[in-house]
Amino acid sequence: MRMVDIIAKKRDGHELSTDEIQFLVRGYTDGSIPDYQMAAWAMAVLLRGMTPRETGDLTLAMAGSGEQLDLSSLPGIKVDKHSTGGVGDKTTLVVAPLVAAAGIPVAKMSGRGLGYSGGTIDKLESFSGFQVERTREQFLDQVKEIGVSVIGQSGNLTPADKKLYALRDVTATVEAVPLIASSIMSKKIAAGADAILLDVKVGSGAFMKTLEQAETLASAMVKIGTQVGRKTIAVISDMDQPLGFAVGNALEVQEAIDTLAGRGPRDLTELALSIGAHMLVLGELVKDVEEGRKRLEEIIQRGEAVEKLAQMIEAQGGDKQDVYDPSRLPRASLTAQVTATQDGYITAIDAEKVGHASVVLGAGRLTKEMPIDLAVGIVLAKKRGEQVRKGDVLATIYANDAALLQQAEVELAGAYGYSTEPAWSQPLIYKTILE
Amino acid sequence: MRMVDIIAKKRDGHELSTDEIQFLVRGYTDGSIPDYQMAAWAMAVLLRGMTPRETGDLTLAMAGSGEQLDLSSLPGIKVDKHSTGGVGDKTTLVVAPLVAAAGIPVAKMSGRGLGYSGGTIDKLESFSGFQVERTREQFLDQVKEIGVSVIGQSGNLTPADKKLYALRDVTATVEAVPLIASSIMSKKIAAGADAILLDVKVGSGAFMKTLEQAETLASAMVKIGTQVGRKTIAVISDMDQPLGFAVGNALEVQEAIDTLAGRGPRDLTELALSIGAHMLVLGELVKDVEEGRKRLEEIIQRGEAVEKLAQMIEAQGGDKQDVYDPSRLPRASLTAQVTATQDGYITAIDAEKVGHASVVLGAGRLTKEMPIDLAVGIVLAKKRGEQVRKGDVLATIYANDAALLQQAEVELAGAYGYSTEPAWSQPLIYKTILE
Repeated sequence: MRMVDIIAKKRDGHELSTDEIQFLVRGYTDGSIPDYQMAAWAMAVLLRGMTPRETGDLTLAMAGSGEQLDLSSLPGIKVDKHSTGGVGDKTTLVVAPLVAAAGIPVAKMSGRGLGYSGGTIDKLESFSGFQVERTREQFLDQVKEIGVSVIGQSGNLTPADKKLYALRDVTATVEAVPLIASSIMSKKIAAGADAILLDVKVGSGAFMKTLEQAETLASAMVKIGTQVGRKTIAVISDMDQPLGFAVGNALEVQEAIDTLAGRGPRDLTELALSIGAHMLVLGELVKDVEEGRKRLEEIIQRGEAVEKLAQMIEAQGGDKQDVYDPSRLPRASLTAQVTATQDGYITAIDAEKVGHASVVLGAGRLTKEMPIDLAVGIVLAKKRGEQVRKGDVLATIYANDAALLQQAEVELAGAYGYSTEPAWSQPLIYKTILE
Repeated sequence: MRMVDIIAKKRDGHELSTDEIQFLVRGYTDGSIPDYQMAAWAMAVLLRGMTPRETGDLTLAMAGSGEQLDLSSLPGIKVDKHSTGGVGDKTTLVVAPLVAAAGIPVAKMSGRGLGYSGGTIDKLESFSGFQVERTREQFLDQVKEIGVSVIGQSGNLTPADKKLYALRDVTATVEAVPLIASSIMSKKIAAGADAILLDVKVGSGAFMKTLEQAETLASAMVKIGTQVGRKTIAVISDMDQPLGFAVGNALEVQEAIDTLAGRGPRDLTELALSIGAHMLVLGELVKDVEEGRKRLEEIIQRGEAVEKLAQMIEAQGGDKQDVYDPSRLPRASLTAQVTATQDGYITAIDAEKVGHASVVLGAGRLTKEMPIDLAVGIVLAKKRGEQVRKGDVLATIYANDAALLQQAEVELAGAYGYSTEPAWSQPLIYKTILE
C-alpha cells in the first residue's frame, strides 16, 4: 500500500477502505508517512469529503493510535459530554456533578481554554488547592467512591489526532468537517466513553457561525457514533451571546455553583438540564428526557448537586467551603460598568467580542504558554432581548489592571446592538440530533 | 503575508495575487515555506484550478527562482522547442540542425530519458566522444559559430520547479494542469527562450492519454506564453504508436540522420517539417508555415541539414564521420524478429508497450541512476493501418542479452492489434494551437 495512491484515490472522490485508513493513521503516527503527504490528503478530504463509514474508520483508527482509558472497572454506562466551545460556557461545571448525583459515573478529562473559548480545567483551578493532575488509580478510585472526577488531559491519548490537528492548523484544513468530527469523537472514545452527549455551539462566539454548519458537524458526529457503536446525541445550542451572565474563570465557577443550587441564569439552567437529561437517557437511568429532567430538578432542589461538587472539590485537594462561600474564590481588585448608550432593546451581545474583551483582561490565553488571571472577567447584567434605558448598567467588568480594564470597556461596548423594536427572539437550543 | 491564508484562499476557489504567488515561490525556494504547506496548496490548485494570470505569475516566479540563461549575445529570436515526451520521439535530433541551417540560433538544453520516454541527451551520446557538458562560454560560442548546440541541463535553473516537481510526485498532485504547464514553461523561459514551440503528445505512449487532456495542457501553456510575453505555438501530435520506425538511442540517431538526408519515415519527416516551419515563423524568418516548410525542404534537399548535424557533432567532440556512416554507431549483437500472428490490418501498435519492451532491453532507465545500453532497441517494419499476412515481419529487436531479448519479444508481440477491416486512420497532428 502506498500513501500516494491513497491520496490520489481521495483526490478523485473515491471512498477509502478501512485498511487504507488504518494504514495512513498508523503510518502518520509512527512517522513513516510524512507531513507533506498527510497535508495533501487533508486538503483532498476537505474538498472531496468522506463517507460516514470512512469517518467512522478514521475515528477508531485515531482513537486506537495511542493509550486508551479503560473505564470498565466502573459500573454502569459511561456517558461523556463534549462542548465545541464558547464564551461563558461553564456547562460542564454544572452537568458533571449534577448527573453524577443522579448516578451516572463521570470520569471526565477536560481541556484548558484557548483564545476566547474557556476551559473547564482552568475554571476548576479557581478552587485553591484543586488538583487537575491525577494518577489513573486516583482518578478511577475517586469515581468509584463519589461518582465524579474531572481532571486534565494526560497520557498519550490519540497521538495521531494531535499531529493531524497541528498540521491542519497550518495547512488551511481545519474546516474539514469529517476531520473536525473524527478529531472530537476519537478523543471521547479514547477517553473511555460508552455514550456521548455533544453540545455543538453556533453563533458569533462559536467555531460554527451558521446553523447549517453546526448541523453538518453535529450530524457527522452522531453518524460516527452510530458507526462505531457509541450512542451519541447532539444538541445545537446558541453561542451568539455568552451563555449565562459570567465570563471569566472564578466568575463562571460562582455562576455554576448558583446554578447547581437552583438560582442560576435561566439559559444556563435550561441547557444544563437538557444536556443532563439526555445523559441520563444515554446512561439508561431514565426512559426519556422528561423523566430525566424531573429527576435532575429534584436533585437540585434537595441540594445534592451542590453537595456533589463540594465532594469532588474536596476529593481533589480543594476546600469544600469555597463551594458554600464563593466569596473565597479569587477576586479582582478593580471594577467598571458598561452602560447602555441609548434607549431600546438589546438585539445583540456579540459573544466573540465579549470573549475578546475577557481575553484582554487576562481571563483567556492566546497561546498555550500564556498564564491567565483566574479572577478577572465580565458579568452581564442584561441579556439579548431585554429593554434598556440609556445609562442602564449592561455589564460589570472585573480587572486587575487599569489599562487593560479601559481596553476591555471599549471592546465590550462594541459588542452591543440596539433596536427600537423588540428583538426577534433566538432559541437557546436550536435542535437535538438523535441519529 | 501568511502561507496558511494563501492556501485557504486557493482552497476556497479564489484567485491569488501576483504578490502572493511570488511570496510562495520565494518562500518555498528558500525553505521558509515547508513542504507540507506547499503540498496542501498543490492539492487545492489541482482541485480548484488557477486562472491564466495566476499560472503566468507562477511560471515567471519559478523561472526567476534560480539562475537564468542569458542568450542576449546571440543574434535573432531564440526559439526553443519542447516535447512532452514519447516513444521513438527523436524530433529534436532532426529539428535542431534543420532550423539552425535555416538561420534560427539553437542554444538548447535537453534532458535524459526516464521510463519509456527517451531523452535527446542520451541519444546524442551515441556519437562516441560527444560532449553534453559544456561551459556557458563554450555553449554560446558554438551557437555563434555554427548556429547550434544541444547540451545537458546544467546550473541551478528553476530550483522552485525542481522542489515542487519532486513534491508533486509523492503527493498525488502531478496531474494538476496549471502546475504541469508552468513547470514546462518556467524551464523554457529560464533557459532563455524568446519564443516556444510545444509538441504535446497524446496517446498510449504519452502522459496525456486523451485529446481533451492534451488540448487542455496545450492551451494552458499557450496562454502562459501570451501572459509572459513569449510567443508560443503548440502542436498536438500522435503518440498512440511510436513516432517513425526506430525506438532506442543509436537506432533513433540513425533514423534522424536518414530524415535529415530526406529519406526518413513519412510521419517523422512530416512532424519535423511542421514543427520546424512553425519555429521559422516564430523566429520571424518566414511569414507563414508554407514558406517555412518549403525552405526546410530545400535545406534537406541541398544536404545542408545533415551537414549542420555533422558540424554540431564535431564541435562538441564527436566524429562527424559517424553522421555520414551511421554503421559506426553502437550496434547490438543479437537480433530477433516479431512477426504477424494473423492476416489482416494492423489497428494498433501500443506505444506504451513498445516503450516498455525497449526499457526491458536496456534502452531506457526506470530510475535516474540506471545505466542504459545505447545500442539496443526496436525497429518497426510496419506501422498502424498497414495490411499484413500471417508471418510477415512486424519489427526487428536489437539486443545484447538473450534473456532480455526473449522478454522483449513477448512484450512487443502484445503491442499489436489486428482487424480484418482496414483500420480507421488517425492523424499525425491533431491540432495546432496558436493562441
